[in-house]
Amino acid sequence: MFRKLLTLNQARHVIQRHFKARPLGTEMIALLSAYNRVLSESVTAALDIPPFNRSTVDGYAVKAEDTFGADENKPAKMKVCGIVNVGEATKIRLAGNESAEIVTGAPIPAGADAVVMMEDIERKSDELCVFVAVSAGENIMKAGTDIKKGETILRTGQSLGSRETGVLAALGITKVKVYAIPRVAVFSTGAEVTEPGRSLSSGKIYDINAYSLSTAVQESGGKPIYSGVFRDDIAKLQKVLKQALTCADMIITSGGVSVGPTDVMPKTLDSIGEPGVIICGIAIKPGKPTTVALIDGKLIFSLPGHPTSALLIFDLLVRPIIKRMAGIESRKTLTVKAVTAIRLFPAKGRRTFIMVKLKREESGRLTVEPVPNGLSGAITTLQKADGYVEIAENQQFIDANEKVTVHTFKNLINA
Amino acid sequence: MFRKLLTLNQARHVIQRHFKARPLGTEMIALLSAYNRVLSESVTAALDIPPFNRSTVDGYAVKAEDTFGADENKPAKMKVCGIVNVGEATKIRLAGNESAEIVTGAPIPAGADAVVMMEDIERKSDELCVFVAVSAGENIMKAGTDIKKGETILRTGQSLGSRETGVLAALGITKVKVYAIPRVAVFSTGAEVTEPGRSLSSGKIYDINAYSLSTAVQESGGKPIYSGVFRDDIAKLQKVLKQALTCADMIITSGGVSVGPTDVMPKTLDSIGEPGVIICGIAIKPGKPTTVALIDGKLIFSLPGHPTSALLIFDLLVRPIIKRMAGIESRKTLTVKAVTAIRLFPAKGRRTFIMVKLKREESGRLTVEPVPNGLSGAITTLQKADGYVEIAENQQFIDANEKVTVHTFKNLINA
Repeated sequence: MFRKLLTLNQARHVIQRHFKARPLGTEMIALLSAYNRVLSESVTAALDIPPFNRSTVDGYAVKAEDTFGADENKPAKMKVCGIVNVGEATKIRLAGNESAEIVTGAPIPAGADAVVMMEDIERKSDELCVFVAVSAGENIMKAGTDIKKGETILRTGQSLGSRETGVLAALGITKVKVYAIPRVAVFSTGAEVTEPGRSLSSGKIYDINAYSLSTAVQESGGKPIYSGVFRDDIAKLQKVLKQALTCADMIITSGGVSVGPTDVMPKTLDSIGEPGVIICGIAIKPGKPTTVALIDGKLIFSLPGHPTSALLIFDLLVRPIIKRMAGIESRKTLTVKAVTAIRLFPAKGRRTFIMVKLKREESGRLTVEPVPNGLSGAITTLQKADGYVEIAENQQFIDANEKVTVHTFKNLINA
Repeated sequence: MFRKLLTLNQARHVIQRHFKARPLGTEMIALLSAYNRVLSESVTAALDIPPFNRSTVDGYAVKAEDTFGADENKPAKMKVCGIVNVGEATKIRLAGNESAEIVTGAPIPAGADAVVMMEDIERKSDELCVFVAVSAGENIMKAGTDIKKGETILRTGQSLGSRETGVLAALGITKVKVYAIPRVAVFSTGAEVTEPGRSLSSGKIYDINAYSLSTAVQESGGKPIYSGVFRDDIAKLQKVLKQALTCADMIITSGGVSVGPTDVMPKTLDSIGEPGVIICGIAIKPGKPTTVALIDGKLIFSLPGHPTSALLIFDLLVRPIIKRMAGIESRKTLTVKAVTAIRLFPAKGRRTFIMVKLKREESGRLTVEPVPNGLSGAITTLQKADGYVEIAENQQFIDANEKVTVHTFKNLINA
């Protein structure tokens, strides 16, 4: 068994070498249920939009040449031979010096090549006086000017919001091919951990991680399969993991990865398939005992039991992979620049992530200071933090009043 | 019937005067299904977290006073009377000069008030040598230091992500009371509009708005009730609206609000209840014919048929109201500063919204230029735009190279 502590970047490379994060399948779904889903194929227009030449104004369809030379004093005179309404397949066909009344959005009748606006005409019964000259194409939106038949209108990887849904509807599309949602089994281990909802006996605490990580899976575009809490029993865990491998695309566990006698996850992971554990410990703080395995071509992340560590490692390692499996372009995390209120020290030789709170001073200066998290097992640390500051392995400290980049948990822009 | 063109701000005030946008109800749901939902009541801790005094290290629980004066040369000697594992209700009770082995997370046994770390002891059988002095409380996380029983831990209006879900799980909570999701009926009107999925006869176009607006409702935290397309028939529309009022909290229609003979929405809205139409036209471009009614205490937005106008008016007027009905704090829209590439002209006397594309020049300067949208009915305008620039009613133009605020449709930060 390979048991070397890797740097964070080495850990990322090891995962990439063993596992190509990409969508696992596609499905055809109704456009009305496709909000936030990701297209798995490009969409090509099967028709012109608009499908026909449309009038862009209320007025009279004419042959432009019949209006040439017309002005206020010398109107062009023509016959009105009907009206074209919207939504109609008109049979009107204009001959010379003929016109047809037309409303906005209605199809231009055969023989016409321009539309004169209402304010530029005078009509008496079937006689029309046109007081302006129009050129061919005037006040007409030609077929295909918005979308051309055959044009690629949305590309693979596009996620669907109101604007994209509208474009698809315009083409008459009601079903779209999207990437399948990755299924992620999530469970916790530990003798002291009790599933929320049960009664808490003395010496026990409620499980946090299976809940917080299930929600984090949803935030990342995956579907969690919440599987509860299990004791640190190798035979039981082997069974649970094997079962999860049959129904999930990834497994996330928490707890059981430190160095104590009940920390059985690495051994269990190595016992159920090849290659087994590929990462056993990362030189970061918090999150050092993080263990990653690959079995049946599926990643199993065994995160530390400490809730803040588990969610941080999820953010750093797991979230980007689930997003890619969901077909979601992984955007950079949101960052803001701020100034440190006090000197920040890293853990020696480990990439260190310090949870911080942002504070806007009266002068307008944005400062950060660490959330008190010296207490082992504090679960409110993350909730109280606005984000984190990263300190490199070889850095001694970040001084007070130094400018730092804060990776924010929420969109704090304009806040 | 009141038929005055209002400014955008006047329109907002008229709506506020008639309708208080607030959540309509609450429901109890499983925490595992509560992602992105909004708490409708504050949550108070029913227990201490941790629920008992826990050891934060692996080591030996002792009475601190028994170690006073101990050092490398003069260790304190004591008896080991057992081990405390995690998850156990231990019966150990220490007398003077007694200790108990303890692992991280296990409850501190009665009589002990500090924990000595593994590296500071030497053990031979049941005899323990302690080479340091510890003070009372050392290496102990006291009950309630993370969360105090009775403390308000999450407040009404908080939306639930991974961090909040974790805090609730820590308290053993598996069900939460959240605001009900507002139901919004959405349909389109117009003789030329065909529902996507059907065959398109000559002179017709596919409906866009019922689809794009349904998705926009989802983006805003509402549940759309997609109701399709109806002809401009007053009796039919009366029936559809009355039916929608029984099952939806809000109605959004599009089309039928201009000044033509088939623009029957305002008349229909006034015919089905009181007070009926409260806004009939707004001095903005695009979106001038926007009509708003209040019937049975519910808002009905009748948006223009033009897809870009419909979505813009949704953003300006409807989205903030649905969000408040869903209990979601309405954050300001995302904005970026950019420089105009060309002079931008507003429509005279109307608040004007120009759809723009952002471009990063080689110099690093961010510029905006309008998306070509002169074509009436262009549906790709919004899809091609990165956001919009707003020009006030009394402004003549925005000059080229002027700095402007762009309201972006997507999160373009770090892009």
